[in-house]
Amino acid sequence: MVMGSIPEKVNLAIVGGGVGGYVAAIRAAELGLSVIIIEKDKMGGHCLNYACIPSKTLLHIADIYHKAKNSQNFGIEAEPKINAQKILEWRMGVSEKLEKGVEFLCNSNGIEIVKGGATFISSQKLQITNGTEIDFDTAIIATGSVPVELKGFEFNDYILDYKKALMLSTIPKTLTIIGAGYVAVELATLYAKLGVSVSILARSTILSHFDPEAVSIIEKSLEKLNVKIYKNSVPESHTQTSIKLKSGEEIPHELVVVAVGLKPYTDNLGLENTKVVVDQKGFITVGQSLNTADEKILAIGDVIGEPMLAHKSMRQGVIAAEVAAGKNAGFDNVVIPAVVFSDPEIGIAGDVSEKTGIYIKKFPLTALGRAIAMNKTDGFVKIAYDKNKVVKGIEIVSSDANAMVAEAALAIEMGATLEDIADTIHPHPTYTEQIQEVAEAGLGRPIHFFYGKNNENGK
Amino acid sequence: MVMGSIPEKVNLAIVGGGVGGYVAAIRAAELGLSVIIIEKDKMGGHCLNYACIPSKTLLHIADIYHKAKNSQNFGIEAEPKINAQKILEWRMGVSEKLEKGVEFLCNSNGIEIVKGGATFISSQKLQITNGTEIDFDTAIIATGSVPVELKGFEFNDYILDYKKALMLSTIPKTLTIIGAGYVAVELATLYAKLGVSVSILARSTILSHFDPEAVSIIEKSLEKLNVKIYKNSVPESHTQTSIKLKSGEEIPHELVVVAVGLKPYTDNLGLENTKVVVDQKGFITVGQSLNTADEKILAIGDVIGEPMLAHKSMRQGVIAAEVAAGKNAGFDNVVIPAVVFSDPEIGIAGDVSEKTGIYIKKFPLTALGRAIAMNKTDGFVKIAYDKNKVVKGIEIVSSDANAMVAEAALAIEMGATLEDIADTIHPHPTYTEQIQEVAEAGLGRPIHFFYGKNNENGK
Repeated sequence: MVMGSIPEKVNLAIVGGGVGGYVAAIRAAELGLSVIIIEKDKMGGHCLNYACIPSKTLLHIADIYHKAKNSQNFGIEAEPKINAQKILEWRMGVSEKLEKGVEFLCNSNGIEIVKGGATFISSQKLQITNGTEIDFDTAIIATGSVPVELKGFEFNDYILDYKKALMLSTIPKTLTIIGAGYVAVELATLYAKLGVSVSILARSTILSHFDPEAVSIIEKSLEKLNVKIYKNSVPESHTQTSIKLKSGEEIPHELVVVAVGLKPYTDNLGLENTKVVVDQKGFITVGQSLNTADEKILAIGDVIGEPMLAHKSMRQGVIAAEVAAGKNAGFDNVVIPAVVFSDPEIGIAGDVSEKTGIYIKKFPLTALGRAIAMNKTDGFVKIAYDKNKVVKGIEIVSSDANAMVAEAALAIEMGATLEDIADTIHPHPTYTEQIQEVAEAGLGRPIHFFYGKNNENGK
Repeated sequence: MVMGSIPEKVNLAIVGGGVGGYVAAIRAAELGLSVIIIEKDKMGGHCLNYACIPSKTLLHIADIYHKAKNSQNFGIEAEPKINAQKILEWRMGVSEKLEKGVEFLCNSNGIEIVKGGATFISSQKLQITNGTEIDFDTAIIATGSVPVELKGFEFNDYILDYKKALMLSTIPKTLTIIGAGYVAVELATLYAKLGVSVSILARSTILSHFDPEAVSIIEKSLEKLNVKIYKNSVPESHTQTSIKLKSGEEIPHELVVVAVGLKPYTDNLGLENTKVVVDQKGFITVGQSLNTADEKILAIGDVIGEPMLAHKSMRQGVIAAEVAAGKNAGFDNVVIPAVVFSDPEIGIAGDVSEKTGIYIKKFPLTALGRAIAMNKTDGFVKIAYDKNKVVKGIEIVSSDANAMVAEAALAIEMGATLEDIADTIHPHPTYTEQIQEVAEAGLGRPIHFFYGKNNENGK
């Protein structure tokens, strides 16, 4: 890539060209700032190159394979074959195309991209690996996160992190995943759909931070895909072909993925040369304007804490750019929606847990025409609302949850009431009708599900 | 089916057990009315048995087949086979299950279902085919619509209406569709994906009432599926194996579908015995409370006019029930979203046509990560807004448009501004991000598409 010469002084220096960093850069450039991004790997960061995009690309492909193989009841019969090399080529090609797209956007917006590591040598100066120094008015730290290693199961040629697990050139027969968060569940779904015998070693259950009712549906769906879930399991030792649990059980594998979490990435960043403060877990501490303890330095995305989600970083990128440009901006979103790309998917906006002053209503997918037509009736939508019928949370366990959660997020951000949703015509026949139905049920006027004479069962 | 005895007098008599009628019945029963539905065919009406649900069921199956056959670039190779009999069984089974579901809901809510035709013998009395007479306080006409016949191409054993076209027990090699509205386009998409050589005979173009920019994308996608579109064509005569156009061209077929529209269905309804008024096209004239010219009679759904969409009927069903129960209700929805289940889909809420005082912005699918990953980049989202940035219309041409249009509808019903949408975090990576991106672009702060230095190109 052809780069311009590196300027000695910029309005805004951004460390990390991931989805937080480059979005901040674009917004800042629009606001007239001179901007430089320093990235030591690939533009687009983990999301484009190693995580969100590759996993959804592969999930899509795995789903095509799985549906081709398992649609006899629909009248489609096939013996599909997997060309693992071609899958990998497509997946890598997608990331490459997106990386180039980000570079194009940066170039178009007049943003300098510098390839290299960056170290703060003071609160107003960064040094790049090649020795160049850059003065900045403001810096944004957008360095993201890296996979956590598990003691005794350090990464090697058969113990992979999720990044490598999304770059396989052959499909293993058996795969053991240590960890049971959403990354693990998505990997399990993807490889199980491709016919791999997947085992999940869960410290407690899968998706332990999620609504148990949702988790129970995903558990069943994984089991239908022949995924074995070892709950409350403690992996003690391993060989190249098996893992031994504390319980004594031995689980054979061809490959292992350790997906036990992410940690903030601040290695060699030179934070000690600034006033930036990190917490016990290593996350950079920020205020609502995404300002660190150092007045010249902002931070966004994974490196400032949970939830470590791309769309949170992107939104914070926009805010941080506006703050850097002197605007009065703050990260004040009410909801950060989350999606687990399991099958069915889980989509969540806001909070649907039971608590005082909050009412919850549920509509089951078994009552939805679209779901019956597609043979996808395992799931539900839950809505949480207060005494004024203002919507506080929506949880969707369904096909298309990834798309439906956008409506849920908008509804909550706008302070929608149950009436607002119930009285909005939702297109038929779609999965979105569930959101309308559950709102109607919350108002005591359900249509496609019978909650009992007094509308009391089914909560 | 076991029915109760037919009451002589009810609060509410509903003629037609389609999606408008049964939804009205459920809501009315909740409000304490005694309700009877008179249906001469199947509960659930056209939508469940002959139209929406069957077409989406078959589109889903056709898509599985098509993807199985055409995913070599994704690394999936298959030679899928079609078992037409099984497809039909699944499709019929779905309708049957939904029909039973509706009957169960009606029974649970204490609604009587009577099978038979119904004729008004006065403004307060209906006579059922078997001679029974029923007095009502209020009646709702929800008789729907029927396919229009085309002169010279009357339905026979090889000229089918869309209902029969969704009940084939063998898949033809060639299929000619006369008509080019959304029903024709969905049929063409479905059968083309199943490998049928489809021809569309369009009086002008396909989807002539839609945005030409959207239409052009659907045209290209149909052509990729080997659908031949004969624009400005006038079918003059036919044999069992071909149709001759006015231009002299002869188009061979195995089957023909005539899908040139629907007309309101009021045959034998006895409207002449009431004060109900119909317009020149035969639609029943109603006011905002869905009241006809006869104070005891309401009407909803296809029989009262365009758009003839199931979700419009359902919403009107709720309103009509509330009116019948004496509530002060009216059909005042700002938007009735519409979806064409083409590939990509078209989803529309509100109006995105150019007009004074309205600004339009477009975001192309080529700029969306998710679309690039799925190889589905033909499409866009357009947003229309006024000088106060209040959103007036959203048009989506994209995979998942059917789900995304729910957010669009809610946004417009709630009076959302561009900021409301732009500042709501949309989950990544999903097609819904387009809605956020186009709103950001409208605000002059685009991210993933470069509209030029002054943000002027790309509208």
